[in-house]
Amino acid sequence: MRRTKIVHLIDAAHPVNDVLVKGWVRTRRDSKNFSFIELNDGSCLKNIQVVADAAIADYDNVKRLNTGAAVAVTGRLIPSQGSGQKWEIQAEGVTIIGAADEDYPLQKKRHSDEFLRSIAHLRPRTNKYGAAFRIRSTLAYAVHTFFRERGFTCIHSPIITGSDCEGAGEMFRVTTLDLNDIPKKEGKVDFSADFFGREASLTVSGQLEAEMFAMALGDVYTFGPTFRAENSNTSRHVAEFWMVEPEMAFCDLAGNMTLGQELIQFLTRYILDHAADDIDLFARFVDKGLRACLDGILSSEFVRLPYTEAVNILKTARRKFDHDPVYGKDLQSEHERYITEVHFKRPVIIYDYPMEIKPFYMRVNDDGRTVAAMDVLVPGIGEIIGGSQREERLDVLTARMDDMGLDRRDYWWYIDSRRYGSVPHSGFGMGFERVMMLMTGIRNIRDVLPFPRTPGSIEF
Amino acid sequence: MRRTKIVHLIDAAHPVNDVLVKGWVRTRRDSKNFSFIELNDGSCLKNIQVVADAAIADYDNVKRLNTGAAVAVTGRLIPSQGSGQKWEIQAEGVTIIGAADEDYPLQKKRHSDEFLRSIAHLRPRTNKYGAAFRIRSTLAYAVHTFFRERGFTCIHSPIITGSDCEGAGEMFRVTTLDLNDIPKKEGKVDFSADFFGREASLTVSGQLEAEMFAMALGDVYTFGPTFRAENSNTSRHVAEFWMVEPEMAFCDLAGNMTLGQELIQFLTRYILDHAADDIDLFARFVDKGLRACLDGILSSEFVRLPYTEAVNILKTARRKFDHDPVYGKDLQSEHERYITEVHFKRPVIIYDYPMEIKPFYMRVNDDGRTVAAMDVLVPGIGEIIGGSQREERLDVLTARMDDMGLDRRDYWWYIDSRRYGSVPHSGFGMGFERVMMLMTGIRNIRDVLPFPRTPGSIEF
Repeated sequence: MRRTKIVHLIDAAHPVNDVLVKGWVRTRRDSKNFSFIELNDGSCLKNIQVVADAAIADYDNVKRLNTGAAVAVTGRLIPSQGSGQKWEIQAEGVTIIGAADEDYPLQKKRHSDEFLRSIAHLRPRTNKYGAAFRIRSTLAYAVHTFFRERGFTCIHSPIITGSDCEGAGEMFRVTTLDLNDIPKKEGKVDFSADFFGREASLTVSGQLEAEMFAMALGDVYTFGPTFRAENSNTSRHVAEFWMVEPEMAFCDLAGNMTLGQELIQFLTRYILDHAADDIDLFARFVDKGLRACLDGILSSEFVRLPYTEAVNILKTARRKFDHDPVYGKDLQSEHERYITEVHFKRPVIIYDYPMEIKPFYMRVNDDGRTVAAMDVLVPGIGEIIGGSQREERLDVLTARMDDMGLDRRDYWWYIDSRRYGSVPHSGFGMGFERVMMLMTGIRNIRDVLPFPRTPGSIEF
Repeated sequence: MRRTKIVHLIDAAHPVNDVLVKGWVRTRRDSKNFSFIELNDGSCLKNIQVVADAAIADYDNVKRLNTGAAVAVTGRLIPSQGSGQKWEIQAEGVTIIGAADEDYPLQKKRHSDEFLRSIAHLRPRTNKYGAAFRIRSTLAYAVHTFFRERGFTCIHSPIITGSDCEGAGEMFRVTTLDLNDIPKKEGKVDFSADFFGREASLTVSGQLEAEMFAMALGDVYTFGPTFRAENSNTSRHVAEFWMVEPEMAFCDLAGNMTLGQELIQFLTRYILDHAADDIDLFARFVDKGLRACLDGILSSEFVRLPYTEAVNILKTARRKFDHDPVYGKDLQSEHERYITEVHFKRPVIIYDYPMEIKPFYMRVNDDGRTVAAMDVLVPGIGEIIGGSQREERLDVLTARMDDMGLDRRDYWWYIDSRRYGSVPHSGFGMGFERVMMLMTGIRNIRDVLPFPRTPGSIEF
């Protein structure tokens, strides 16, 4: 008999005489003449209820089943006699595939997120984390679907890089040198002996490479892991995370903002349509305000607010901030959240930031003081997207690089793209974990990644 | 006026009075009263032909257009008067967006793949590489679609890892230690000062982590970058490549083989259906046998052949191999290609390999000498998939680890999964670049990756 996944039985249209299900026991409770087994196979949030009559030949097996055990059940799918479920399986055969030791940590009770992090290899077996990782998968597919429907080409930008997009201090070094015996030349590391013959790091962004492809294929995006070696232990920081980075030729900052809004609204709509049960768990048990938040995103036109006005709003706010808002400084997380959660109560796109606080590749505005940067802020999260129109003018770009002390020779290929058919183009980076946090109400980034990497923590 | 992508004009149903296209000039040729511009915007392989009458006001701009320049053209889409295309644009306005310097390397002539590798930031602007990277994107989407349709959950397995799946010699080290001044303790590197507090590397496979999720969610897969620090400069090796790794609970080796065949056939069907023009370029100019090869994959039942029989076939082959086929040794690439290309002339799955040449996690067969491993071989490529049923029995697994000198403490979480509801499960790894090579006929792996990483080479 062919195994049926539980997701296909939960909403069955009619009874089935012969079914085979395989899964893991969530709970078992016995009455006088029956055992009730809640079985889950990960295909959906819901368990199927198995009713085993004490008269069946395999009843000895049933009595040995404890939480966590793997089991195969054959029987009939019939309308449930109990409340709480439409169907149940009347067991005919019950085979233990793999028992669970008595010390199985996921016994039926609430476990703290901290504890579950320490058993990240088992936590997807819980309702909450199973739901979270099914949602993550659906959101990832939604990202690809959004871009594909709009004619974007997916680019696998390199992970190991010789470039430094935003500042070498925060990058992981990649090497095959023997750390016990580093080869040196004139007192310095001799990278000629290293795998790539020079210093190599883990990428912090695929943007510069994506720009090269945008100037060939038009609309492109990357979706892959990126890295920051920041030594900060907060609920918002991990060393390894996934980023979505679209890049569009012939697109200005306004078009970039439009794409950002459309993407976030598309993902929200998609996840409500395609993961309703799993989202419902988070709306009920994790964040009571989740539905209102997601509905707000769907129904709002995102506010577009120049940075200067944002600073004015913050300065006149009846709110004491830990950091005083000052024109010419980056907005703090508390500032961003005030603007989107308190002042506007909906998503806000702040744009035209002071040149001094932004990287060399952002396009200088006509005022000569600001750049065509934009950040999308959403309630509950703060910044979820950061992007810009890129500087397409060769002379302005190279002057800016010189001003910032960057060596043009390190970027010869990037500069090249401005010498041959350079065009206005724009793009942004969206932190995928931030999207996960927005959609689930989970507030610690460690809990939306399968095996999070943080300072001092690389288990599993 | 809103810009229209060329892909939407090439097969237009009727003439359009007002169109705006933006793209890059591939060629321009002038006759007495006209200029003909071949314009490409990367949205498809085909160019749109722009006809500019010498009488238009912007004709001075037209005369300045050279290969590689970016341009905006307004005009009317009309049936083409020339042969070779259905539609052309009768230009009314021509604006130069970005000129191309005279030394633009992609002038109209054939360039060698070697040369184009040295300008990997520009090569997607050629027909061949534009097509290759559109195909890559479509194939990536097809991978996700295949698994999603079958109820698999996509898992983002970690890139930085403390585990060693197949042998530390081939792994890149990841560190934030100052290489100029490595902290030491008793003469050895003091990793307690490193970011993760211990040695860390780039992953060679997400399998072990995917197994943990398969035992929670049932069917899962990973699709992400993996790394090998092998110092080999061949047309088949790169340091960074993408791998697809499904993992299925309640699945044996036969089911694993079936999935492998279904996946490869699905991808072949998908790419023929969704990237016909781009595939056609490769079938015409890169590999004359491409269509026959892809048709063969679609129409064949893959041969299933025990390793022992494979060795016998090789031993009796009327063919001199560089390496003599010997029972108990891994098959060489020349062996694999003989079996799939010469002997069977279709895809072949070899299974049940000698235990000694396979990793600890593969399930030991009842004969006690072989493991439930399988490799899928396809003509032109050789091995494209390698997988196995995993050892689910705690006692067999730990005995095998002991035999191989692995420290159980390093794999405590992996072993844990065999203590709590362990189930038969299977999975495989499919090299995504190998799939690209199969579908395009490209025979150097460097030419199917946007920016390949090889020994001594990390430009861009």
